[in-house]
Amino acid sequence: MSHTTSPTARLMDGTAFARRMVEEAAERAAALAARTGRAPCLATVLVGDDPASVTYVRMKRNRCAKAGVQSRHIALPADTTTAQLVDAIGELSDDSGVHGILLQHPVGPHIDERAAFEAIAPEKDVDGVTAHSFAAMSLGMDGFASCTPGGIMQLLDHYDVDLTGKHAVVVGRSAILGKPMGMLLLGRNATVTYCHSRTTDLAAHTSEADVLIAAVGRPRFLHGDQLKPGAVVIDAGYNPGNVGDVDFPSAAAVASLITPVPGGVGPMTIATLLTQTVDAATRQLGAAG
Amino acid sequence: MSHTTSPTARLMDGTAFARRMVEEAAERAAALAARTGRAPCLATVLVGDDPASVTYVRMKRNRCAKAGVQSRHIALPADTTTAQLVDAIGELSDDSGVHGILLQHPVGPHIDERAAFEAIAPEKDVDGVTAHSFAAMSLGMDGFASCTPGGIMQLLDHYDVDLTGKHAVVVGRSAILGKPMGMLLLGRNATVTYCHSRTTDLAAHTSEADVLIAAVGRPRFLHGDQLKPGAVVIDAGYNPGNVGDVDFPSAAAVASLITPVPGGVGPMTIATLLTQTVDAATRQLGAAG
Repeated sequence: MSHTTSPTARLMDGTAFARRMVEEAAERAAALAARTGRAPCLATVLVGDDPASVTYVRMKRNRCAKAGVQSRHIALPADTTTAQLVDAIGELSDDSGVHGILLQHPVGPHIDERAAFEAIAPEKDVDGVTAHSFAAMSLGMDGFASCTPGGIMQLLDHYDVDLTGKHAVVVGRSAILGKPMGMLLLGRNATVTYCHSRTTDLAAHTSEADVLIAAVGRPRFLHGDQLKPGAVVIDAGYNPGNVGDVDFPSAAAVASLITPVPGGVGPMTIATLLTQTVDAATRQLGAAG
Repeated sequence: MSHTTSPTARLMDGTAFARRMVEEAAERAAALAARTGRAPCLATVLVGDDPASVTYVRMKRNRCAKAGVQSRHIALPADTTTAQLVDAIGELSDDSGVHGILLQHPVGPHIDERAAFEAIAPEKDVDGVTAHSFAAMSLGMDGFASCTPGGIMQLLDHYDVDLTGKHAVVVGRSAILGKPMGMLLLGRNATVTYCHSRTTDLAAHTSEADVLIAAVGRPRFLHGDQLKPGAVVIDAGYNPGNVGDVDFPSAAAVASLITPVPGGVGPMTIATLLTQTVDAATRQLGAAG
């Protein structure tokens, strides 16, 4: 006789909420264009032709187009040097026709990604990857959020997840996902634990999380038996084959709220990128006008 | 019949190790002066006349003088505005005769402390308080450390505390102490938990810490019964009457290593300030020569 568990968790529908965010961004973009004669413009920079990266950039540009946000694509060859990439991004930073800059990452291992990120002017860093944006997220200063953590915060708020005093465990510590995620949660009064590849006894930590953020980039890495019953589970993973970092069936059986993959965090990331591009354009065109 | 506990912990002698650091900084300062004809110069900025702040600044300047580091003191009246303070700091940032800038904090509540910090040029931020320095500590970029967290890392290394995979719990989340402390520990592969005033059941977290950093600013806030036996306990508190954030007798009975107050973290903070001032001068005078 086989035992089956049935999902008890409520789904956090990123697709639906992201649609609303994009509609709002589109309305603001249209109003801005009507007022200033100029549409927001996002520059996308891609080094090489990694198929996944090509797809992501195309998806982002399509979403821009639908929302009335122009995009300008800079495709650079795979053998672009750090200096060349920094120069290319620096030109976009200086170009008043560009309001936001997205460098599709990861870039190749021969490139100093941090140097490339830092060539983005803070006021155009709509993907939230610069040191300035990280410090802003961490210290409560004005600035853009990294899009995935920023989108996750929007989703948590949309589902009325109260963070104060809750134990949030972030699994992963990348500069654009895990680290800023924890800082945003800390800023909202959660007790925050960072786990990562060197963490001893991961399950001991994840099983105490009221809010669990999976940001490791390993397919079905976390299972329901590692989670606290009733936890809010956010799967920021997006691995080949549309698979997240969380084993959905087992996690959904114990969580109270959970993001599906796809349709959870992914759409929120793009919606945040669009929203922040419109924010940047509004500020830059407002200042210019 | 009364039960007494006897201390089992080994003391982490910040005074002795800081002395060695200061001697090394003094040797480097002398060599730099011999080579360039100029001594490192730290500008100290004090707003108002809070007695504790006056004492701290005097202590730091005395320590500078003994190490062959010049200092220039800017005393501003208590009613200085944010704009005036930003201007004063901006002048020091532009002054090639000044290699490091220390704004004694906290400044008065009528001043935007963050704006004042951000007026410090990153290359002169020897106290590690700017957004740039915070991001550098967090993301592994070049930059100065906040002096107290930076000094604590030195002390942990000096006592051969292996951080990889250890659970480090930071109690406190200020921009210049708790937050950067956690980021430095995370960069050294510790699993890091941030606790703070809104944390539910603090003892549940502190009692699981292999390394505990107390950075709350409340006298004798943490007691031995809240600690894990064998923990490394770092008391970054410094409250009136030379009292730390940790109740020393009860903590020393369970910890394996512990910093006393005074004589633990405090001297390391000043030694780090001096070392970083010499680092800054070396870079600036090296670049100029």
